[in-house]
Amino acid sequence: MSIPSPLIVREVGLRDGLQSITRVVPTADKLQWLQAAYGTGLREIEVGSFVPARLLPQLADTAELVAAALRLPGLITSVLVPNLKGAQAALDSGAHRMLLPLSASRAHSLANLRRRPDEVVAEVGRIRAARDAAGSRCLIEVGISTAFGCTIQGAVAEGEVLRLVQAVLDAGAEHVGLADTVGFANPLQVARLFERGLSIAGHRLNCGHFHDTRGLGLANVYAAWQAGVRRFDASMGGIGGCPHAPGASGNVATEDVAWLFAGMGVPTGLKFEALMALRGRVAGWVGGEPLHGAIWRAGLPRTLQEIE
Amino acid sequence: MSIPSPLIVREVGLRDGLQSITRVVPTADKLQWLQAAYGTGLREIEVGSFVPARLLPQLADTAELVAAALRLPGLITSVLVPNLKGAQAALDSGAHRMLLPLSASRAHSLANLRRRPDEVVAEVGRIRAARDAAGSRCLIEVGISTAFGCTIQGAVAEGEVLRLVQAVLDAGAEHVGLADTVGFANPLQVARLFERGLSIAGHRLNCGHFHDTRGLGLANVYAAWQAGVRRFDASMGGIGGCPHAPGASGNVATEDVAWLFAGMGVPTGLKFEALMALRGRVAGWVGGEPLHGAIWRAGLPRTLQEIE
Repeated sequence: MSIPSPLIVREVGLRDGLQSITRVVPTADKLQWLQAAYGTGLREIEVGSFVPARLLPQLADTAELVAAALRLPGLITSVLVPNLKGAQAALDSGAHRMLLPLSASRAHSLANLRRRPDEVVAEVGRIRAARDAAGSRCLIEVGISTAFGCTIQGAVAEGEVLRLVQAVLDAGAEHVGLADTVGFANPLQVARLFERGLSIAGHRLNCGHFHDTRGLGLANVYAAWQAGVRRFDASMGGIGGCPHAPGASGNVATEDVAWLFAGMGVPTGLKFEALMALRGRVAGWVGGEPLHGAIWRAGLPRTLQEIE
Repeated sequence: MSIPSPLIVREVGLRDGLQSITRVVPTADKLQWLQAAYGTGLREIEVGSFVPARLLPQLADTAELVAAALRLPGLITSVLVPNLKGAQAALDSGAHRMLLPLSASRAHSLANLRRRPDEVVAEVGRIRAARDAAGSRCLIEVGISTAFGCTIQGAVAEGEVLRLVQAVLDAGAEHVGLADTVGFANPLQVARLFERGLSIAGHRLNCGHFHDTRGLGLANVYAAWQAGVRRFDASMGGIGGCPHAPGASGNVATEDVAWLFAGMGVPTGLKFEALMALRGRVAGWVGGEPLHGAIWRAGLPRTLQEIE
């Protein structure tokens, strides 16, 4: 059912990465980061989150980042929104795409969002109504987290995840993705859940968001790709680690995902040398926060051409 | 064509790991290491290499390790042999299995083994004759390295790798494996080459040896497992890195492979807590050499049971 499409890597370091560290990176640095990320060939970037500045001062300048991103030709500008209020800010900003997180684990949803999953589904409906009333073309995506397991309740039933995929689409979301932000997923599980999800949602299920917490991030990306997924979240240097597991990896590293697909002959449009250069600058901007990922240590095989 | 079998992880840290570091670990420590590895549930261990002590003083005590390993009930004792002379020593030692490396890359073979690949194939024949003449039941396995690419010549033709798989079996090897010791392989390539190899060799092609140099080690293990491979080399703490790429990972880490298969519900017999305890001791024995791997940082999900 899925429509064949080129492979898209969405860079989430400016949101998922910076959200997880306490240091507030100055807006001027972020604007350079955004520009350099665009220069690596990335054509979808999550630039921030419309949450109250008192909760996440790191992301208080999201509107300014959106404005800058909208000036970059061909770039899809994505923002995270926690609720209708954030969605209104996203609509005002002119972002192309808003991502609403929904936790499939009831326990995690109550603890982190203070809402049951179905209350978030209802919020999707309100956001869709607001979007349509505003005459906006901002695309509504829901990211279903704890889709592969939860730090609080443990297992999450696949049937419940699939029910929520259908529910958010019914409520008005245009796209949906599945996320493992806690590093519980294994590739067999990823393949199975995405295959079942794609049979329900078709190409509207079109994002895999994997963390490398326990080393299986890239194996999970590969398994989702095998199942038909053609769009993945990643962050430069794998930033976005869990604050409760010091040293643990965060998102799959953009440069590693680029290497995975380059090796497989799947074009991503990403330029390896530019990714490596940006990685070095990101290390400076986040000031001592640990970076992750593998390919930067060994570099490309000397006998291979530049990937792109 | 492959015969279904339980999943086997062969621990290679005592050979591949120690071979790559200059420090000579005392025999007494290695004997403790061997005993503890057995205690984690490992039932196949490569304990050393019968190479001249002047070349690899780290492994000069291999015969002593073999003798100790043979006293552990149910353990398959494996040793590396570079040539007929090493094979004679392996036969004398009573090891259950000898592994002869063969580089599919002609350039790499000449540089590292000072022999063309077909000269190594001929050596397999001589080793088989010696084994049979000795009335030994020591199993002869050939590990085809640079099967997925080579640091010297770059690409290695799949047809040449497959030709060598057939050639070593014809020459008398009973088992054969494919190795990526340089971190060039990607999962699509791994799946394709193992599928083609299995169609030629059936269950006699039964080992995947992957390094995590560029982050794809576990994805490659998964891809080979999907293709039907049920036996993998790994090393505690991922030791065995390339001396030419400081900080680069080595073999896939035994504990990470255990987590991969545990998550997928594939029994390996490995006990996670025992693996973690051994990892800590290995760190001491190798004295400051960097360890690798992912699961040790985050640990098992708290909501999951002990894996086994």
